[in-house]
Amino acid sequence: MTILEQTVAAIRPADPAALAAARAHQDSLTKPRGALGVLEEVAVRLAGAAAVSPPPLPAPAALAIFAADHGVHAQGVTPWPQEVTVQMVGNFLAGGAVANAFAAQVGASVTVVDVGVAADLPPAPGLTVSKVAYGTADLSVGPAMTAEQVVAALEAGIAVARELVDQGARCLVTGDMGIANTTASAALICAFTGKDAAAVTGRGTGVDDETLARKVEVVRQALRVNGLPGGRESGPAAGPASGREGAGGLPVGAGSFSGGLSGGLSEGTEGTPEDGRAVPPLEVLAAVGGLEHAAIAGFVLGGAALGVPVILDGVIAGSAALAAAALAPAVVDHCVAGHRSAEPGHAAALDHLGLRPLVELELRLGEGSGGLLAHPLVCAAVRVMHEVATFDSAGVTDKEA
Amino acid sequence: MTILEQTVAAIRPADPAALAAARAHQDSLTKPRGALGVLEEVAVRLAGAAAVSPPPLPAPAALAIFAADHGVHAQGVTPWPQEVTVQMVGNFLAGGAVANAFAAQVGASVTVVDVGVAADLPPAPGLTVSKVAYGTADLSVGPAMTAEQVVAALEAGIAVARELVDQGARCLVTGDMGIANTTASAALICAFTGKDAAAVTGRGTGVDDETLARKVEVVRQALRVNGLPGGRESGPAAGPASGREGAGGLPVGAGSFSGGLSGGLSEGTEGTPEDGRAVPPLEVLAAVGGLEHAAIAGFVLGGAALGVPVILDGVIAGSAALAAAALAPAVVDHCVAGHRSAEPGHAAALDHLGLRPLVELELRLGEGSGGLLAHPLVCAAVRVMHEVATFDSAGVTDKEA
Repeated sequence: MTILEQTVAAIRPADPAALAAARAHQDSLTKPRGALGVLEEVAVRLAGAAAVSPPPLPAPAALAIFAADHGVHAQGVTPWPQEVTVQMVGNFLAGGAVANAFAAQVGASVTVVDVGVAADLPPAPGLTVSKVAYGTADLSVGPAMTAEQVVAALEAGIAVARELVDQGARCLVTGDMGIANTTASAALICAFTGKDAAAVTGRGTGVDDETLARKVEVVRQALRVNGLPGGRESGPAAGPASGREGAGGLPVGAGSFSGGLSGGLSEGTEGTPEDGRAVPPLEVLAAVGGLEHAAIAGFVLGGAALGVPVILDGVIAGSAALAAAALAPAVVDHCVAGHRSAEPGHAAALDHLGLRPLVELELRLGEGSGGLLAHPLVCAAVRVMHEVATFDSAGVTDKEA
Repeated sequence: MTILEQTVAAIRPADPAALAAARAHQDSLTKPRGALGVLEEVAVRLAGAAAVSPPPLPAPAALAIFAADHGVHAQGVTPWPQEVTVQMVGNFLAGGAVANAFAAQVGASVTVVDVGVAADLPPAPGLTVSKVAYGTADLSVGPAMTAEQVVAALEAGIAVARELVDQGARCLVTGDMGIANTTASAALICAFTGKDAAAVTGRGTGVDDETLARKVEVVRQALRVNGLPGGRESGPAAGPASGREGAGGLPVGAGSFSGGLSGGLSEGTEGTPEDGRAVPPLEVLAAVGGLEHAAIAGFVLGGAALGVPVILDGVIAGSAALAAAALAPAVVDHCVAGHRSAEPGHAAALDHLGLRPLVELELRLGEGSGGLLAHPLVCAAVRVMHEVATFDSAGVTDKEA
């Protein structure tokens, strides 16, 4: 088996006994049942993922920022010049970015991974060079990556997850840097959820109306030229996803094992998306993904395979997680949605994954910023299970008793 | 001047120059403008409150849990027996409650303040005894407190704020414990916002439909017998607040200085709420508040007077902050809404205060739990202003430049 196949095979779904034990434990603690709302469910889910209740405290955390460039930048989908990717990598390594400040706040380490920056980077502490290519090809004119590139980027992400866990990380946080990468994310979300491009394409880090309209058209074209769902013209931009919701798109796990992972990219010639063909997830990633999307998918799979929870950051991570979940549906049991960004596609991705975000503060930065902010919340949720007294032990009267 | 009057007089509104400097600084940092969403506004507000940009890092934090009992417990508004207040105080002091686990997570100290528990508590480390009474009188048959009790509880809260800041706290977090205290909160919110009882009364830590209906009726009766807005029967429970929104209720700051603070409680005989009489805030607190509500209002005022930001917890803090804001409108500039609880009145209180909550996870616990969870987010927001490089200093190309 390849490293990717081994990783996918190692991912276990949530353990039902641990889930049940965690729920029972929550109900014995000195608080009204359910009073911690969403955080109770987070703690229970992590118990299921770890197959033990209470689950281990998810600390320390390690942030990996996967950086790459995008051929689609040439289509004018962002006002930021491509060299900002390299410049921001330098900023991360110098400790001057928002991700660094947030990581310092929550005690997380920061690793920058070059999986596809369009320039050679000088060696630096904190930089892992796993360059697969000098950026992707333009997804609006054909596949962004080759089959080999996708697998290499996925395995680069797996390797980073393994290394960080080896170094002691007990929680992984996804991060990304790549000018134009919300365009690739929107295309991935269309392909995996069946939503229309206009419904999931957003302003990224800030584009005007004209650029947004162009970006939507570029996403549509990318889907069309690559033969993926979501590429059809549709009705009003803000309307529902052309009536395709629930029917179109690629269900989580679709095609994941039908022909084996290695054969995934050479499959799928038997029909069009409109015929209900389940496009193999590696093919979708190759067609409209970015190198950092593939690497993040691998990073998520790698963490899950090791039983270490992964906090997903924003729309880049959400779209990468759709790919990871298509390869290994059980990976979702190991993921926490750190936040919901202002990007409309992010909500669609999280809905499809069945994940509820913890932080909703209209962030639209990336870098792992929203994932880092969620880390203390996740730790707090788990701490409750370790440290809070039961009604019996504390001598507190239980209204239900 | 009394301590309360001194405190109110010392509270300054946000400094316009610091606000402007903070906004300009945010726009120079290596991130798209506005990309940190709500957190940018939090950092800017704290700069205004501190009258300096960047504002000081709001750490370490200190949680004060104000504990008290309620005469209205006799009306069957909660399934929890009253002795749970004392039992939970013991749990806090033993370190076994959720508030302790969350405080440990964020590095906050925990102080429990007995302002009105209906039993004598043995001395213990971490317990401040400032008992004003053995619980309030039943607010549904007359005023819950005397004028003297309200002022004593407010000044107890001010004293705790001063002491914690003296000890090094640079952020205060409100906490509460008091079986039946969501009933008093609902009544305060009706009185200060003009909303109908049915719209703001919730299930607290978990009441059934029958108890909820009784609770709404108790709140209505409390407002009626105490001559406060919101006590009239109204239309459908879930409907708008009887068309009184914006017209009824007590505007923030209403009557706050019309007769001086000390005279506030003996005033207000010149008309009914329906006549537009501005009931003095101390009178409202005395009529339908709890001892912990008054103490929290004092705690908030005390922090603001010292220029230390205060993170508000849930609906108890929100209703107490309405009283504080009625006494000193500028206090709001020093407050951060830590979270929005599942209690419907909380949203009404935050709307009235003009505060946007940071955490929305369906918590309904109290104790300061939601406020504590927000602390790392507030710190992260401020850290950005201290630690993130500017476009110029980092050599990153600015799309707007």
